Amino acid sequence: MKHGGDLSDAIAQYGGGPPAWLDLSTGINPCPWPVPAILAAEVWQRLPSRADHEALIAAARAAYHVPAHADIVAAPGTQGLIQWLPHLAPPGAVAVVGPTYSEHAIAWRAAGRDVIDVDSIEAAVARAPHVVVVNPNNPDGRIIDHPSVMQAARAVQRNGGWLVIDEAFVDTSPRSSAVALCGDDPIVILRSFGKFYGLAGIRLGFAIAAPSVTKTIAAALGPWSCSGPALAIGTAALRDHEWAEQTRGDLREMAQAMDRVLTRGGLELIDGTALFRLARHHDAAVVHARLARQHIWCRRFDHADDLLRFGLPPDMAALDRLAAALGSDA
Amino acid sequence: MKHGGDLSDAIAQYGGGPPAWLDLSTGINPCPWPVPAILAAEVWQRLPSRADHEALIAAARAAYHVPAHADIVAAPGTQGLIQWLPHLAPPGAVAVVGPTYSEHAIAWRAAGRDVIDVDSIEAAVARAPHVVVVNPNNPDGRIIDHPSVMQAARAVQRNGGWLVIDEAFVDTSPRSSAVALCGDDPIVILRSFGKFYGLAGIRLGFAIAAPSVTKTIAAALGPWSCSGPALAIGTAALRDHEWAEQTRGDLREMAQAMDRVLTRGGLELIDGTALFRLARHHDAAVVHARLARQHIWCRRFDHADDLLRFGLPPDMAALDRLAAALGSDA
Repeated sequence: MKHGGDLSDAIAQYGGGPPAWLDLSTGINPCPWPVPAILAAEVWQRLPSRADHEALIAAARAAYHVPAHADIVAAPGTQGLIQWLPHLAPPGAVAVVGPTYSEHAIAWRAAGRDVIDVDSIEAAVARAPHVVVVNPNNPDGRIIDHPSVMQAARAVQRNGGWLVIDEAFVDTSPRSSAVALCGDDPIVILRSFGKFYGLAGIRLGFAIAAPSVTKTIAAALGPWSCSGPALAIGTAALRDHEWAEQTRGDLREMAQAMDRVLTRGGLELIDGTALFRLARHHDAAVVHARLARQHIWCRRFDHADDLLRFGLPPDMAALDRLAAALGSDA
Repeated sequence: MKHGGDLSDAIAQYGGGPPAWLDLSTGINPCPWPVPAILAAEVWQRLPSRADHEALIAAARAAYHVPAHADIVAAPGTQGLIQWLPHLAPPGAVAVVGPTYSEHAIAWRAAGRDVIDVDSIEAAVARAPHVVVVNPNNPDGRIIDHPSVMQAARAVQRNGGWLVIDEAFVDTSPRSSAVALCGDDPIVILRSFGKFYGLAGIRLGFAIAAPSVTKTIAAALGPWSCSGPALAIGTAALRDHEWAEQTRGDLREMAQAMDRVLTRGGLELIDGTALFRLARHHDAAVVHARLARQHIWCRRFDHADDLLRFGLPPDMAALDRLAAALGSDA
């Protein structure tokens, strides 16, 4: 499977309607920021205004602690930014620190760039002017510390490239974010709204970088790139710092409970983030199929047939269901 | 003003809160397709699935009468497609038939293309491999007939270019659409969902072209480019053929009533579409300011200081308000 989050394959193979399934195949928070039941009609009807857009940007600057000399631009999902970056970056190849989220390499290759797979940021800067790293990494949760980011940024700057840091899963460990290092250097940080706020359907993501870079990205995206509902909901959610703080704690707690269930279920815990856990099992395919027969969908990987990734369940009842399914012979 | 539909400038200059204003500066249907008051929570929370996407595409194929040998791809707004096309088309300059919607020329120029302004489709094909024409044109409503489109398509094919036809406003006169001519030729048609359905905030648009071209566009957009709400609402609205038929009639009727008001108000009617009307006045700036002081916002143009464009009012009371404002000395 190429990505998590789509039950179409699961249902085709194992039956059951969507409500029957416990979908643990994504890293999306299953307890979303509470969208108001009814939105103002105008968010659907009119084109988003400059004022709507400025309110979102101000809320995002504060939530992500964007330094004054850096800038931030909004897009209809981080994926939309991943698609554009290879068309906007200066000429040259890219080194992608992997294994990681596959769409970075796909997008750079589709734009005609040479893509070099490397396994560390140190190797990356030596191999290509542009570097892409996912931090914390998906699926293994590996975190690159600030001194390493700064060292890489200096090398990338000498090489005339961009250092793209995809922080899609950093919200639960905000001190790992490199946003504070961003500004008059080659760092381009991607932040995903939908994962931590549990609202992947609204399509909202951000790039944080030097103003010259965000200006290039904004010109490529053009006017009205984000929807009215994304602007309205994104602004309100990003202003809700109390919810974010509470949610960070809740997710960490659920991740710990999940680790105990996975370990007791015979899996070896590797790491991950507070939004998903990565575990090893010598018979991962068998475990995956056993869970699928009980309509629990977790994530397998092409690059390693002994790994499984589990998104968080929405509540303890769902966690108990996973525990029972792991222990069963079904 | 660069675009209609943003009251920020109007309010800054003339005061009044948004509810005080009658915004006639866009070509967006003021009587939208009725969005359900409450959407399923999952459209916000999960990533749009392949099944969601396929349902939208099937509904759009039927609504737009896409021929079997052509294909259709969805994007987060036609503007998003306008941004991508210059990065995806074969090398070469573009001729834009104008004056018209300004973002086409902006996007091709930003992608490093030579942009040639021409005033007819015949002149366009003689000047550049790629041609962009808005049909019906915005703001003057000029329609290019099918024989002219086919003749242009043959010339563009010989030149190895794309013939981009922006049909943003064709929904009220569907027989003017060139969709039926689309398939194994260089025609790329853009269809806007938000204007006719009155839901510009959800950001949804389509490109209809030969499968080789839509495949290139889809790869550039990447996965999950459209939001969950856009897919859900777009699918339901595009299936609602009865609403579309009724709305075409209603809009034509309101456009005729509007013409009478504008003419009685001393403006010379030029043309337009059933979603906006273009009129001439030797003191257009004075008329624009007089209406603005009464919190009615219509559209002026950089390319002609004697033109004003009026979107449709939502009801007869609003039309009466325009009539009174045009007749007043305020």
